[in-house]
Amino acid sequence: MTDPLIVGWAHTKFGKAEAPDTMALMAEVALPALEHAGIAPDAVDGIFTGVYNNGFQRQDFQGALVAMGSPELAGVPFMRTENACATGSAALYAAADFIASGRGKVALVIGAEKMTAIPIADVGGVLLSASFVAEEGDTPGGFAGVFGRITDSYFQRNGDRSEELAMIAAKNHENGTRNPYAHMQKAFDLAFCNTPSDKNPLVAGPLRRTDCSLVSDGAAAIVLAAPEVAETLTRAIRFRARAQVGDMLALSRRDPTEFAGAHRVWGKALDQAGLAISDLSLVETHDCFTTAEMIEYEAMGLAPRGQGWRVIREGTTRMDGALPVNPSGGLKSRGHPIGATGVSQHVMAAMQLTGDAGAMQVPGATLAGVFNMGGTAVANYCSILEREK
Amino acid sequence: MTDPLIVGWAHTKFGKAEAPDTMALMAEVALPALEHAGIAPDAVDGIFTGVYNNGFQRQDFQGALVAMGSPELAGVPFMRTENACATGSAALYAAADFIASGRGKVALVIGAEKMTAIPIADVGGVLLSASFVAEEGDTPGGFAGVFGRITDSYFQRNGDRSEELAMIAAKNHENGTRNPYAHMQKAFDLAFCNTPSDKNPLVAGPLRRTDCSLVSDGAAAIVLAAPEVAETLTRAIRFRARAQVGDMLALSRRDPTEFAGAHRVWGKALDQAGLAISDLSLVETHDCFTTAEMIEYEAMGLAPRGQGWRVIREGTTRMDGALPVNPSGGLKSRGHPIGATGVSQHVMAAMQLTGDAGAMQVPGATLAGVFNMGGTAVANYCSILEREK
Repeated sequence: MTDPLIVGWAHTKFGKAEAPDTMALMAEVALPALEHAGIAPDAVDGIFTGVYNNGFQRQDFQGALVAMGSPELAGVPFMRTENACATGSAALYAAADFIASGRGKVALVIGAEKMTAIPIADVGGVLLSASFVAEEGDTPGGFAGVFGRITDSYFQRNGDRSEELAMIAAKNHENGTRNPYAHMQKAFDLAFCNTPSDKNPLVAGPLRRTDCSLVSDGAAAIVLAAPEVAETLTRAIRFRARAQVGDMLALSRRDPTEFAGAHRVWGKALDQAGLAISDLSLVETHDCFTTAEMIEYEAMGLAPRGQGWRVIREGTTRMDGALPVNPSGGLKSRGHPIGATGVSQHVMAAMQLTGDAGAMQVPGATLAGVFNMGGTAVANYCSILEREK
Repeated sequence: MTDPLIVGWAHTKFGKAEAPDTMALMAEVALPALEHAGIAPDAVDGIFTGVYNNGFQRQDFQGALVAMGSPELAGVPFMRTENACATGSAALYAAADFIASGRGKVALVIGAEKMTAIPIADVGGVLLSASFVAEEGDTPGGFAGVFGRITDSYFQRNGDRSEELAMIAAKNHENGTRNPYAHMQKAFDLAFCNTPSDKNPLVAGPLRRTDCSLVSDGAAAIVLAAPEVAETLTRAIRFRARAQVGDMLALSRRDPTEFAGAHRVWGKALDQAGLAISDLSLVETHDCFTTAEMIEYEAMGLAPRGQGWRVIREGTTRMDGALPVNPSGGLKSRGHPIGATGVSQHVMAAMQLTGDAGAMQVPGATLAGVFNMGGTAVANYCSILEREK
């Protein structure tokens, strides 16, 4: 497999956007990403969009919206992918397959979501359409309710880890203050994150508002190019690994505190890359809830099962730790526009590797891991990126 | 590009199904397709589902539903594609890229749609979410209204071709009587199709009910395998070509009677295959409305622009003509479960090439064309299939 390289990107500031819909959001990143890559629109062979939708807006056929917003791309073949909260990675991997298969040499990948156009009270219901609706579709509190239960189970087995969750929240909020693309660029200290209050109420089970990612609008784009095209450009990031693993959707069919799919996909990715987790300079991981980041520490192999909480307590994943996790602030403070997230994570990692991460920069970053999941570790993607030039 | 081969398939009978949702529909074809191919479930490297959804059912994250219905496939990576009415071809092409890229050796592709679970009055609104909603989303009569206008424009330029449309309808209904998978296996003669009546009312503009495809439930599956796997199996169909072309979504931005994208994609596919249209034994084409099949005759090069109506009048595309088009009955009588259609068309073509088409069989078929489109020739896919063994 001759995988294509990441040669350019663009990213909106996540948050409540003025752009009224995904068409407008995608238009904000499509041509800028190509310009960043130094590639003309007429050199694009395929467009891959990742949008969850299913209720966020009536307009679907989201692949067709890119050229509507950027007519320079009229005529280019396009498609849309969906894989719940891993929708963005699904688009990226489909585009990488497209180029590696020889069907094209340049692909434009755009993940986007407009979440704030519908009443906030309806957002939870849309998101639960990515759970196993027959069993989980009416969970009070939406996906926070699902993760509230997972957190409860985890605490029952491994002790109350509320403080460690708050430490993860405080870390990611602190990191987010250095990310100009983040929805929330404001620090919240451990005491605030750890203490339920009017401003930080309990949302579901032991989860406080600061344990939950945000409802955001946003788009992120990546340009992929075949090696012979990348050679002619100024910047190139290679996939040392890209691995994908599925797991059963229904939580009733497995132990939801295990994240077995996340374990397996990290194992596959590190194998493919011939690396150990300790070789990585940083990881961007899927912290839709702080509980997720804690369990993902276990999936990465940073701690045995049930002991992910030790990792944040020991400081390993802080900016000054051995393996900074979510230097971008993660979904927690960057925001989580569903379809955009997987693409955004890869952009954040790529910026680190080219030394363009500004105040977020992990000094001397050479290898970055990205973990993105749909559902509760149901659709699992893990990339390991390395700078080529 | 070393494209994978089609090595097995399965197909539900289209129509109003007892299966309550896409999960159940997909379960009806997943393992049967693998069995048809002679491949064990644990040899599957990737699952690619094509479902339009966006209102047909609340449950989304459709890629995750295959293993829920067929637990033998638990753990396999999956994703969902969407490209309006070309959603099925999008899944098939993504799966082909996946294998051609070297990421896997066997892929299971499933297109499915459950359209009849919502009130019939709501179906049109869901389908219009694949038009450019800002301009076309309130078209009276839904997509039939869109095609009613296109038909009107065509007639204004090229004369009233109602009778030729009725001839296409009668042909496809006649063909459908020989297809055990078809939603409607009943012949309607030219007089019936050509005469508005209580049983065949005008639906939109000059379009009568018999000019429109059906609202159907259904699923179709295809197993793709890398050449080294296909070698070990009993049956293999190769892609002589697979081509894809995009066009602008909004009808206001182009001449909607031209189907420019369909023209371009047929040109690309025939080029890729090194063939002329006259080399093909049959074509399965996207007759969501009879007008579409008429204009697609022009896109195939069977007639100059504005003269597609001559093709059916001359009998070229009938079962006993030089190039049978839609021997399966087409969307017209087979039915059009949105996400399933593109996969279904490829199954119908593949059955012809292996001589398994039963009463539908085109004698001695060696090369088959498939044209599938999303929107009004917005997402265009054209495959040319040939039997390998």
